[in-house]
Amino acid sequence: MVQLSPPGALRAFTSGVLRSEGVPAPDADLLADTLVMAELWGHASHGMLRLPWYVARLRSGATQRVTRVTTVRDTGALLVLDGGHGIGQVITDQAVTHGVERAKAHGVSAVGIRNSGHFGTAAYFTRRAAEQGCIALLCTNASPAMAPWGGKQKSIGTNPWSIAAPAGKRGVLVMDLANTAVARGKVYLAAERGTPIPPGWAADAEGSPTTDPRAAIEGLIRPMAGPKGYVMSFMFDVLAGVLTGSAFGDEVAGPYQPTETSGAGHLLLTIDVAAMADPAEYAARVEALVDATRDAPKAPWATEILVPGELEDRNAELNSHGIDLAPATWTSLVTLAAESNVPLPPTKEAAPPTEQAALPIEEVAPPSTEDVPA
Amino acid sequence: MVQLSPPGALRAFTSGVLRSEGVPAPDADLLADTLVMAELWGHASHGMLRLPWYVARLRSGATQRVTRVTTVRDTGALLVLDGGHGIGQVITDQAVTHGVERAKAHGVSAVGIRNSGHFGTAAYFTRRAAEQGCIALLCTNASPAMAPWGGKQKSIGTNPWSIAAPAGKRGVLVMDLANTAVARGKVYLAAERGTPIPPGWAADAEGSPTTDPRAAIEGLIRPMAGPKGYVMSFMFDVLAGVLTGSAFGDEVAGPYQPTETSGAGHLLLTIDVAAMADPAEYAARVEALVDATRDAPKAPWATEILVPGELEDRNAELNSHGIDLAPATWTSLVTLAAESNVPLPPTKEAAPPTEQAALPIEEVAPPSTEDVPA
Repeated sequence: MVQLSPPGALRAFTSGVLRSEGVPAPDADLLADTLVMAELWGHASHGMLRLPWYVARLRSGATQRVTRVTTVRDTGALLVLDGGHGIGQVITDQAVTHGVERAKAHGVSAVGIRNSGHFGTAAYFTRRAAEQGCIALLCTNASPAMAPWGGKQKSIGTNPWSIAAPAGKRGVLVMDLANTAVARGKVYLAAERGTPIPPGWAADAEGSPTTDPRAAIEGLIRPMAGPKGYVMSFMFDVLAGVLTGSAFGDEVAGPYQPTETSGAGHLLLTIDVAAMADPAEYAARVEALVDATRDAPKAPWATEILVPGELEDRNAELNSHGIDLAPATWTSLVTLAAESNVPLPPTKEAAPPTEQAALPIEEVAPPSTEDVPA
Repeated sequence: MVQLSPPGALRAFTSGVLRSEGVPAPDADLLADTLVMAELWGHASHGMLRLPWYVARLRSGATQRVTRVTTVRDTGALLVLDGGHGIGQVITDQAVTHGVERAKAHGVSAVGIRNSGHFGTAAYFTRRAAEQGCIALLCTNASPAMAPWGGKQKSIGTNPWSIAAPAGKRGVLVMDLANTAVARGKVYLAAERGTPIPPGWAADAEGSPTTDPRAAIEGLIRPMAGPKGYVMSFMFDVLAGVLTGSAFGDEVAGPYQPTETSGAGHLLLTIDVAAMADPAEYAARVEALVDATRDAPKAPWATEILVPGELEDRNAELNSHGIDLAPATWTSLVTLAAESNVPLPPTKEAAPPTEQAALPIEEVAPPSTEDVPA
């Protein structure tokens, strides 16, 4: 049975659970908002299914309940922050505040973040910078998910990265992607839903192809676009892990590991649009690019062309009446409610799910990676 | 017949041809070096085959013979340069000089470049920054090569980008890739060599799959990794074209177009490693990542694991005795020699080409994008 929960109530429930674990109210609200926003955008892989993981980490002490960020280096335009193994989302949110402030002062800023944790969707944070008139690039390293090109043992993360930019009247443009053929979270979601994964996404622990998401979790996720995904992930580990003084390579622990310190590092680069361009001129130019792209002639298999981030904005609108939760996710929330004494959010049985609302951009339309558009 | 030419002589010839076209000696030397380095790295697609294109553009006035770069904005850490439609490589080389200098002063810098031209391989420039202790990200827009996801008409470039980082005793780490299933230059090289292209690289002008490189040049290159390549290219156009005040979308002209102003824009982000980390600690950490990656257990199909940029370094060593030129490329150099009165570089007939030396990293090994490593 699919459960629909109103976003506001789900946010309040999530924050309540986190507060009951000793997370300060503003931090609990923030983490709850990141999870619910992921659901609204149609990325359930980064949504509520992670709440029990985060709670387990808080209980074990792998993640500090109270996040205390310290400044390690500060040149004005460049900062290094130490997250003290607190909540990744809280640490990264502070980094964005600094990054935007420093970019407004210097034109550009770099914030390195060490000893952080998994921060959920990178787009949550780059969008915040874009809403304040900045272009932001945020990258992170992550727990080992794939082998280097030519290897058979996982030692390199999916290492997601996001770029967001203001888009004038069109809102915000944002891309957010993992350098793997698929985000690990989608494999977890398939495992949780008990559905097979498409061929080509992953190999099992022996390196053989598999469509079993549980075997894939024990095995290898493949890099996107062959070795290109490998070199991208490698370089983002240099930026997010090596450079910032955080864990790197196979030292980073995943959010699904309840007892190990994460060690994830991030790098945020922020440019103040107003330092590089007249904001009105920039807005007119970016709007022209968006409009020309949307209005381009369509392939026979497509009815419309979307710009980066548009699908998520549209999904958020569609899902604003209620969020569709997988049965296993709902069961975990029932358990958390009982443990924390926080009342469950209201639900109702869902209408048949609309495909549109559940599809991230990389799955929105044919053709597959190997088919040429006709 | 394959021609082998010593790199030094090829460089001198190329510079001589460019000087005869009115390009100042230092600029001619630089452009010649970028073309010969691309050959040495094994990327003939960005090598000598482009010399006649550049000469045609200089003769038509589409590219200014004498490059004059002006500063449009300057906040200290952030600059906007106008290349005045000069030589892209000369403009970008100056941008790197500024970018490194400003990063050393502020920790991080951003240089936006407008009214530039195609700059060849992005890695040539990011490597220069890395050799000076900086991490650099350089992106560019380019002439339309692919359709937006869901479209059937090309309006978005391959928009290549590169990240390079110092790697201590291991030299420099560098990635450089186009957001297409394949670099356009590889299609041009196949057309020049008269060989078919693999299925999946491109579609013809009607949107149908093709293995004919000439049909592909008139048609569509596909994005890498499906819609991911589209969103990446789109965002890099926002950064390199829209933000910098250069041409964007379908306004950018390609280097193979002899009479049209390029309008290409670039964005360079540079971080001084020493501002973010102790350089000795950083070096030890990056060396550890490189060593652990190289020493990882190998897949059955691989004999070794390379780190980003290593193949190009190795190719440069292998090719240092002589560069293998395609017959059509050699013919174009014979013509340029006659026109410019610059003596041709010496050649000899090549030994059978070593596969290793000609393979860029994305082609170095099985499995294909759709095969899962065994």
